[in-house]
Amino acid sequence: MPKSNKKLRKIYLDYASSALLESANPGAIHELGRKEKEKLDGARSQVAKILNSSREEIIFTSGATESNNLAILGLVRNFKKPHIVTTNIEHASVMEVYKYLQNSKQAKVTFVEVEPTGVVDPKKIRKALTKDTVLVSVMYANNEIGTIEPITEIAKTLRHHNKSNKQKVFFHTDATQAMNYLPVNVQRLGVDLMSFNAAKIYGPKGVGVLFIKKGTPLQKIMYGGDQERGLRPGTENVGGAMALASALEAVEKIKVKEVKRLTKLRDYFFKELKKINFDFVINGDLKNRLPNNINITIPNIPSDLLVIELSERGIMAAAKSACKAGDGKASYVIEAINPKIKETDGSLRFTLGRDTTKADINFAIKSLTQILLKLKKWYN
Amino acid sequence: MPKSNKKLRKIYLDYASSALLESANPGAIHELGRKEKEKLDGARSQVAKILNSSREEIIFTSGATESNNLAILGLVRNFKKPHIVTTNIEHASVMEVYKYLQNSKQAKVTFVEVEPTGVVDPKKIRKALTKDTVLVSVMYANNEIGTIEPITEIAKTLRHHNKSNKQKVFFHTDATQAMNYLPVNVQRLGVDLMSFNAAKIYGPKGVGVLFIKKGTPLQKIMYGGDQERGLRPGTENVGGAMALASALEAVEKIKVKEVKRLTKLRDYFFKELKKINFDFVINGDLKNRLPNNINITIPNIPSDLLVIELSERGIMAAAKSACKAGDGKASYVIEAINPKIKETDGSLRFTLGRDTTKADINFAIKSLTQILLKLKKWYN
Repeated sequence: MPKSNKKLRKIYLDYASSALLESANPGAIHELGRKEKEKLDGARSQVAKILNSSREEIIFTSGATESNNLAILGLVRNFKKPHIVTTNIEHASVMEVYKYLQNSKQAKVTFVEVEPTGVVDPKKIRKALTKDTVLVSVMYANNEIGTIEPITEIAKTLRHHNKSNKQKVFFHTDATQAMNYLPVNVQRLGVDLMSFNAAKIYGPKGVGVLFIKKGTPLQKIMYGGDQERGLRPGTENVGGAMALASALEAVEKIKVKEVKRLTKLRDYFFKELKKINFDFVINGDLKNRLPNNINITIPNIPSDLLVIELSERGIMAAAKSACKAGDGKASYVIEAINPKIKETDGSLRFTLGRDTTKADINFAIKSLTQILLKLKKWYN
Repeated sequence: MPKSNKKLRKIYLDYASSALLESANPGAIHELGRKEKEKLDGARSQVAKILNSSREEIIFTSGATESNNLAILGLVRNFKKPHIVTTNIEHASVMEVYKYLQNSKQAKVTFVEVEPTGVVDPKKIRKALTKDTVLVSVMYANNEIGTIEPITEIAKTLRHHNKSNKQKVFFHTDATQAMNYLPVNVQRLGVDLMSFNAAKIYGPKGVGVLFIKKGTPLQKIMYGGDQERGLRPGTENVGGAMALASALEAVEKIKVKEVKRLTKLRDYFFKELKKINFDFVINGDLKNRLPNNINITIPNIPSDLLVIELSERGIMAAAKSACKAGDGKASYVIEAINPKIKETDGSLRFTLGRDTTKADINFAIKSLTQILLKLKKWYN
C-alpha cells in the first residue's frame, strides 16, 4: 500500500455525493470526506468554546429562523398538553411558531406583556408559569427597539421553579441580535436552547446555530439523513459553518471595544436628534439597550416614506409601520410598548455597526433634518 | 432632493437587518435592500426559465432535504386522510418523511417495489392509487444506482387518473441527481413539485429549489417571516440563490456534450471492470441509467474497506453496506433490487463528473485490481 502522501494524485469519483471535490460530502468515508468532517467539527468546537458549551451541544442549521423553529417545535412535541410562556415582542420566527402552535391547539401559549420600556418583568414570567409549563422563551435582545431582556434573572427564577415542580421548564432564547454585543456564555446565561445566525455577526447568510443543552429533549422537524446528531438532516454546509465560527470569533475579539465605541455613538445620535426642532418619541429603554440601536417614532409622518427619503440621500435605515391591517410589516413591538400609537405612526430604526463613524451620524442627522423640513408642510 | 447617483456616499445604518452592506436584507425597503431583492428575483427568473416554469413557481430553500420535506409535509397537511404512493428506493430525505408520516398515522403510504433493474413500473404505480391518494412521489434518478425513473410515463398515468377521479393526485419528484444530465422542463415532465439543490450541480452547499406548480396547495412547515411567498421564512440567502442559478445555467450549456462524453467513459469503466478476473454484479439497469454512475457489488468483500483502500491510493469513491442492522448507512436500495444479497455484501459506487478523464478510470481500475488481489487471500 502506498504511504499516505499529500502529493498523491487525487482522483475524485464521488460526484453524486458532492459535485465539488474541494467541498466533498462530510458524510463520505474517503479521505476528502473525512477532511470535510474534520473542518465541520473544528467549526463546531470553535463555536462551543465561545459559548462555553460542549461540542455535542452545537447544531448547525440554515439560519436563526430554522434554529428557533427546531428549538420550539422540536421540544414541544415531547409533551402532551404543553404550556409555553413567552413575551409579546418576540421576533416573527418565534412569534409565528407560537401562533401556529396555539391555533392548531398543539400548545397553550401565554404572551406576557413587556413593560412600556420594552423590557419584560421576570416576576410576570414567574407568575405565568403553571404545572404544565414546559418552555419559557424570551429573546435576548429585541430586533426593533434593541432592548435587552433579563435572561439571567429569568433563568434564576426558572431554576427556583424547577426545584419544586415535577415538570421541568426549559428555557429558550433567541440571541440573534445579542451576539455582537452581549455576553454569550450559555452556562452563565442559564439557557437550555439558544439560537442565532451568521448574517447578523458579519458572516454569510444561510447558516445558523442552535445550542441544545445536554438533556434537553428535542425531536427533529425535518426528516432525512442522520446529520447533526440526527436533528438536522441534509448535507452539512461546511463552508457556512466555518465562516460562522470565524465571524463569531472575530466578534468576541472586538466586543468590549465595540460596545464602548458604539454606546458613545448611539448616545451622540440621540443627543443630536434632540437638537432638531421636531417631535419624536424614543422607543424602548435607554439603559437596557443594545449599543447600536436607535429607534424613534415621528408622529404623523409615515416611517416608510422617511426610509425612502433617507435612501435617496444614500442613508440605509429601516422602518415599521404601526398599521394593524398591514402586510405583515406592521410593528407589533411598537404597539406592545405604546398601545395608544396612532395608525399613521410607525417607527424609524437606525442600527450602527463596525463601519459607522461620527461623520455618518452627522450626515444622517443633517439629511433627516432636511427631510422633515420638506415633509412638514405636507403632514402637519 | 438629490438625483439618484451611483457615486452618492452610502451610509449603511441597517446592521440589525444584515451586518454586511454588500449583502443587505432583501426585505429592506432602502436602496441596498431593493437591489438585493432584484438580484434574488433575477436568480429566480433564471431558474424558472431553465425549468420552463413561471418565476412565482420557484422557491429557494436551504437544500434538497428541505425542499423534499416542504413539498411532502406541506402538501399532505391539506388533507384529512391522505394516501401516498412512492417507491422503495427513494432518497432518505423523501423516504424518512414518509416513514414519519406513516408512523405518526398522519398518512397511509404505499411503497411500490421497483423491478430488479431498479426502475419502477408505471403500471404498479397506477394500481396502487386509491380514491384517497393525494400524492405520488417518485425520484427522477436514483442517487446510489443511477437508474432513471419513468417520470413522464407516470405523469401521463396520473393525468388519466385525475380525469376520472374526484381527488386530484399531485406528483412530486426529487430531481437532485437528475439535474446534471436529464431534461428538466417541468411542463414536459408533468410534475407538480420538483426538488433539487446546488451542491450536486457544482454550486454551493446550503441552497436548494422547490418548484411548485401553480394551484398546488402547500402549507409552510416552518414559521416566521413572509419570505418566499410565505412558504419559507428566514432572510433569503441571495448569494446562494444566485450561485445556484449560475450553476444551473452552466449545467444546461454543456449538458448534451457531457452526457455523450460521460456515457462513453461510464461504458468504458464497465468494460474494463469486466476484464479484471473477479466476480462482481452491476447494480441497476444499464440502459435507464445516469451517464456518470457505476455501481457494483463485489461479493464477500466489505465495501467500506474497498473505499478506504481506494482512498489510500488517492481515489475517492462511495460505499454502502448491505447490513440491515447497520447505522443508517445500510443500503435499502441494493436490498430492494437484490433481496437475496448477503449481509456482508455492500455496494461500491463511482460517480464521474466534469473533471473525470479516461486516465482517471484507468488508474481506478488498476488500483482496484491491486486491492482485490491483496484482499483476495483474506476474504476468499
